[in-house]
Amino acid sequence: MSQARNPAVSETGDPLLLTPGPLTTSKAVKQAMVHDWGSRDATFIAINRAVMEELPKIIHGEADFVTVPMQGSGTFAVEAMLTTFVPRGSKILVLINGAYGQRAKRILEIAGREPVIHETAEDTPPDLTEVEKLLVADPAIGHVFAVHCETTSGIRNPIEAIAGLVKRHGRRLLIDSMSAFGALPLDSRETYFDAVAASSNKCIQGVPGLGFVIARKSALAETKGNATTLVLDLHDQHAVFERTGQYRFTPPIHVIVAFHQALQEFWAEGGVSGRGERYSDNARILIEGMEELGFRTLLPAARQAPIIITFHMPQDKNFVFQRFYDALKDSGYVIYPGKLTVADSFRIGCIGALDAQNMRSFVATVSDVLAQMGVGLKSAA
Amino acid sequence: MSQARNPAVSETGDPLLLTPGPLTTSKAVKQAMVHDWGSRDATFIAINRAVMEELPKIIHGEADFVTVPMQGSGTFAVEAMLTTFVPRGSKILVLINGAYGQRAKRILEIAGREPVIHETAEDTPPDLTEVEKLLVADPAIGHVFAVHCETTSGIRNPIEAIAGLVKRHGRRLLIDSMSAFGALPLDSRETYFDAVAASSNKCIQGVPGLGFVIARKSALAETKGNATTLVLDLHDQHAVFERTGQYRFTPPIHVIVAFHQALQEFWAEGGVSGRGERYSDNARILIEGMEELGFRTLLPAARQAPIIITFHMPQDKNFVFQRFYDALKDSGYVIYPGKLTVADSFRIGCIGALDAQNMRSFVATVSDVLAQMGVGLKSAA
Ligand SMILES: Cc1ncc(COP(=O)(O)O)c(C=O)c1O
Ligand SMILES: Cc1ncc(COP(=O)(O)O)c(C=O)c1O
Repeated sequence: MSQARNPAVSETGDPLLLTPGPLTTSKAVKQAMVHDWGSRDATFIAINRAVMEELPKIIHGEADFVTVPMQGSGTFAVEAMLTTFVPRGSKILVLINGAYGQRAKRILEIAGREPVIHETAEDTPPDLTEVEKLLVADPAIGHVFAVHCETTSGIRNPIEAIAGLVKRHGRRLLIDSMSAFGALPLDSRETYFDAVAASSNKCIQGVPGLGFVIARKSALAETKGNATTLVLDLHDQHAVFERTGQYRFTPPIHVIVAFHQALQEFWAEGGVSGRGERYSDNARILIEGMEELGFRTLLPAARQAPIIITFHMPQDKNFVFQRFYDALKDSGYVIYPGKLTVADSFRIGCIGALDAQNMRSFVATVSDVLAQMGVGLKSAA
Repeated sequence: MSQARNPAVSETGDPLLLTPGPLTTSKAVKQAMVHDWGSRDATFIAINRAVMEELPKIIHGEADFVTVPMQGSGTFAVEAMLTTFVPRGSKILVLINGAYGQRAKRILEIAGREPVIHETAEDTPPDLTEVEKLLVADPAIGHVFAVHCETTSGIRNPIEAIAGLVKRHGRRLLIDSMSAFGALPLDSRETYFDAVAASSNKCIQGVPGLGFVIARKSALAETKGNATTLVLDLHDQHAVFERTGQYRFTPPIHVIVAFHQALQEFWAEGGVSGRGERYSDNARILIEGMEELGFRTLLPAARQAPIIITFHMPQDKNFVFQRFYDALKDSGYVIYPGKLTVADSFRIGCIGALDAQNMRSFVATVSDVLAQMGVGLKSAA
């Protein structure tokens, strides 16, 4: 029962966030925000332009793609992508295996588009044979929507195979890569898609407040007049950007300047491969350590993205999730508070400014907390 | 031609922003952002709740009103307010005398609502006799939209008289008070309206990234199903907030924590009256100083809000606006870069962390810059 360890702290004295984002960021990222800039002044415009020009490089798309920023959050970027690319009344096939696929469906229904659904269980990737049948059966389906890493479970969907299928059938692919962008490879030279949505506060390790869509220029050019809102119209924002280099509406300046710093740290770490490797190490240490303690993952290793790991809730009657959460927080670790509805499970993120040592200390702390709670998981599991 | 003065700098070494926002904020506001928080963790939820509960107090509406936050910017809050309160196909009278009234009209048209327009010149408040005629003539008009301070010119629209008229005719008023909120009084006990939209980065002196709508609870309760988007649905965000205290989609955490600090500084300054007084002093010093130099304001004093001042462009051929702007920036003052289209004019803001001494130094710098440019304004004007 002894509290042997000091609580973990980040560089700025905060608990470590083992969540799918917002996540722990570097001190330099946050300190970049301790200034003021005019939103229409050249200094900020140059910083923003650098950010917008760097993002397509992450998908090797600098020749054919353009970044359209969207204030708000990732969902704002997803809704903007869906309602800009898919005209009112048009059909789009939505691949669902978690909350973010469900959310896309809801967005489309509210906005008067026509989602056609292919749904699989939260631990199961889409069935591509079924997807192909749906595309063949309904030529009115113009687009397909897929989630890269479905953060609900942490499953890695087979985006390359999905893209190949969609392209063979002459349809357009829209990707939500929110939690994967910058950590899982997505190479637009090999994987064909029209647009991918992501945000500032996931694997690029910025602070929250900016979504963005990296759009194929030729596809974006065809979207004029599709949007059914002013603020979420990516075509209009892009047109203004081309003309003036400015946002139509006040940008979250500080968030963008922090994102600029985060991108520099991303390249310094080796881009997608360097970052992906660190996250993979984090995930491996976490999974091995937790399995050692008797926990079991929801997903088999082959389907697991190194972003967020879902563990089955232990059956031991002494294991009360809220106590577990609170004890971890007291020890300096904030895990994802929500339980999954489908499986009785909880989640731990391994992205952000976290390294192998953090993950090992976390596992040791989980072991302490289980002992404090009187949970004898290893034997029980 | 001698550069007598050192460039002006803020507490954090930045140029002073004499713009209508984003504006110069205190160092403490920005330093509040140098931490990380989990978006679904109790620590952040408590800070956010404090912000949401304090905002209605600014309009003395804590009994009848509730704050619904909207990620993005002020325009996101305005579009959310219009499309949540006005059902598709319904009519709303839009009072226009500048760009923000025009923007509301565009939002409504794109979103399939039916704007009826009453437009006056940019230096002219709405004609309330005409407004009354429009309301009497068309019972299908359910709502009226008005801009409190139309930031295009800096005109203060007669919001109390507008509200009285709208209420007498049994219609509902929606207000864009973006640039006035917290500096011009708006007392919901005397001025009747259903909702008012504002944002984090204007007179409360936070950083940009959060819009919000302060909505009459009874009116908000009637809006279920009106919204035509997921992300801009205030009714849905409010319902989730009531149930969980959380955002539906990742909030701009750092922006909100900075806003929390900004609100404390706002109350410490004496709330609306204290802040409004400082801004009025700033505006007076600016206008008197600029008139002394030979500039003339677009608006007569009675219509001028102490937020942003529009000056006629001098006719002297040596006065090149871009040179004026750049020389001021080199001296540490960023003014609003845009020219007005209607009158040949430019604008200077007097809100943010600026005091009388800053405004006096600014006017002295303008005098220096005019001399450097060889502009003999005083005699010419
Ligand atoms: C796959 C995916 N899509 C969309 C979102 C929504 O992003 P936001 O919460 O920034 O709106 C998330 C957030 O975790 C996500 O993981
Ligand atoms: C009156 C008014 N309405 C709306 C806006 C739009 O706000 P934002 O630029 O944050 O979208 C502004 C911005 O200056 C404004 O002054």
